[in-house]
Amino acid sequence: MGVHQNRREKIYDWMALEGVSMVMFEDTEGRRDPSVRWLSGQPSDALLFLSIDRKSMLVPWDINMAILYGNADIIVSYREFERRPLKAIRGAAEGLKIPPGLKIEIPPVTPYPLFLDYVGALTDFDVLCREQGAHGEAEKLRALKDDEEIAIYRKAAKITNSIIDMLEKNVRSGKIKTEADAALFIEAESRKRGCDGTGFETLAAGPDRSFAIHAFPAYTAAAFAGKGLSILDFGLKYAGYTTDVTLTFARDLSPAQEKLLTLTEKAYKLALSMVSNGASTRSIAAAVDIIFGKSKKAMPHALGHGIGLQEHESPAIRNRDDNSWVLCPGMIFTLEPGLYNPLHGGCRLENDILLTEAGVEVLTEARVIRL
Amino acid sequence: MGVHQNRREKIYDWMALEGVSMVMFEDTEGRRDPSVRWLSGQPSDALLFLSIDRKSMLVPWDINMAILYGNADIIVSYREFERRPLKAIRGAAEGLKIPPGLKIEIPPVTPYPLFLDYVGALTDFDVLCREQGAHGEAEKLRALKDDEEIAIYRKAAKITNSIIDMLEKNVRSGKIKTEADAALFIEAESRKRGCDGTGFETLAAGPDRSFAIHAFPAYTAAAFAGKGLSILDFGLKYAGYTTDVTLTFARDLSPAQEKLLTLTEKAYKLALSMVSNGASTRSIAAAVDIIFGKSKKAMPHALGHGIGLQEHESPAIRNRDDNSWVLCPGMIFTLEPGLYNPLHGGCRLENDILLTEAGVEVLTEARVIRL
Repeated sequence: MGVHQNRREKIYDWMALEGVSMVMFEDTEGRRDPSVRWLSGQPSDALLFLSIDRKSMLVPWDINMAILYGNADIIVSYREFERRPLKAIRGAAEGLKIPPGLKIEIPPVTPYPLFLDYVGALTDFDVLCREQGAHGEAEKLRALKDDEEIAIYRKAAKITNSIIDMLEKNVRSGKIKTEADAALFIEAESRKRGCDGTGFETLAAGPDRSFAIHAFPAYTAAAFAGKGLSILDFGLKYAGYTTDVTLTFARDLSPAQEKLLTLTEKAYKLALSMVSNGASTRSIAAAVDIIFGKSKKAMPHALGHGIGLQEHESPAIRNRDDNSWVLCPGMIFTLEPGLYNPLHGGCRLENDILLTEAGVEVLTEARVIRL
Repeated sequence: MGVHQNRREKIYDWMALEGVSMVMFEDTEGRRDPSVRWLSGQPSDALLFLSIDRKSMLVPWDINMAILYGNADIIVSYREFERRPLKAIRGAAEGLKIPPGLKIEIPPVTPYPLFLDYVGALTDFDVLCREQGAHGEAEKLRALKDDEEIAIYRKAAKITNSIIDMLEKNVRSGKIKTEADAALFIEAESRKRGCDGTGFETLAAGPDRSFAIHAFPAYTAAAFAGKGLSILDFGLKYAGYTTDVTLTFARDLSPAQEKLLTLTEKAYKLALSMVSNGASTRSIAAAVDIIFGKSKKAMPHALGHGIGLQEHESPAIRNRDDNSWVLCPGMIFTLEPGLYNPLHGGCRLENDILLTEAGVEVLTEARVIRL
């Protein structure tokens, strides 16, 4: 049984227990859901329907792409349904022979006005749209990486680490002088090494722009790694999965800058030391908030997040009362404490962590580089 | 009055006519809405609230960024609301002094489960969530570019055209040999010329991969512009606004490939000849479908789309019965007929068109390049 079929079986089991007759997954512009790729191999732009009698129907925007990559029992071009989700869901209920009166689940990101359209068009069915349904289940399953995914991450991390080493070398030698030099180096080298590309737009911020959490524009022709704090945040996408690391380059720091950087490193070490199977991610993030708070500083973003087919996935790693995630074997996630100041600039240190039965493994080798 | 205040005034007028007391715009991960930037200057990741008594409140994720770019009467960090939309909307109703009992409009992309949360949390108000509300109005207004935006597009197109010329020269001379060569050339040159970067991931597909509408991965180390059909689809982002063009490179075509290309060029010419103030975009797309249909071919995507702060904006340019867009002065949009075949590869020709009172202006100079 192939990897995608294997994953679908888990959703079928869940559907049987919950009595849901058909589930619709949607990965389209504005409503991205990598669960479609995870369950069918189709890289993007498709609907996927699963039925309680364990059949799947893939409805791709690009049928040529689906012939190459798509794995499902039935494949029908989205053109057959005029690229309209309402027509497709009715077509799928027919194609998968769902008897009327039963439960059909649509994605929880379905906009309210579109939800009303679904309910109006599917009067024969009980339409479900909820946070804790099939889609939440798929997201939870995706948070626990399987052996194929862990193998992909080991390769992706290896390439990421070799590029980190080259970046350090080229910044030290003066070969990389600007933000664009750094970002374009990553674009070129990642593809040479077999990556699909970068997982998100590389953020390269020299000392004048590192005050922002996410530099805007993402990178420019401005000087990089000069006097002060520079941030380089990037991820490599390999076989669909993205790494996510942040380096800080530090040169001739003022006492205030040194303080930001030392605190960030201290927070990173503390957070990493708290990672273990069974640990509450909220408590780790809370410990970091306390360290920063003692110095009257605050981190304006979450401590970390799961990674995978998406740049940000489960588990959440933040100090908020709606976060009840607990770390488990199979999770791959970032830890990325950072501090930002409009006058002094900012710094962040981010690595990707894998938890296994055997313990904690820091997959990537991002670091603070003092020049 | 600044450009953002000017734009807000148009929404305030609409709110007064419709009796809507407060409107919430949201631009966050998974729910992007460039209307926030259009109305406030804040580049991304923020909520924006407008009140019927013509006051605005910006709630940015990154307060340092908002101090530089944000334009609003009140600016409050999203941290004050624990980065939760429900807390922020209650805070905004308080900050903007909205009396209970009145209408508050939330984005039409609000997921159904979140909509229920809003209704539960805002029992004092009448919560609206609809396609044809304030957000639809902002989108319609954004489809008609103002003088500032047209000036930006003239610059963006000029840079795009100079890069098209360089691409042609470098492919002909053999300096650009691979998909990655082409894409990285665009990344580097666009930034050198003052662009923010590319408007979307460049799609460079050599003859072996041009069968796909959107190549996957977007570009690789594979050969580009060899025997057959190669597609290069890219856009440059300048001051936030993106161009969107597609070149086809053709070399030693088979009769079947020649047929695809000739038909595409014919469709492009026909579509362009039909562009005029008052023309229905559906009828233009229908005419292209007829041309392709006569040769028993079909285009698997829309004929075009508006461009702006987003890669895909209004107006829609497609042959579907829910499309009633009519072309007007101020619109900037693409025309991009294309045909794709799993055996022969694919081709597409795409340019950006500006309509003014004076007539039709083809801003960009993308073309079929026969090698």
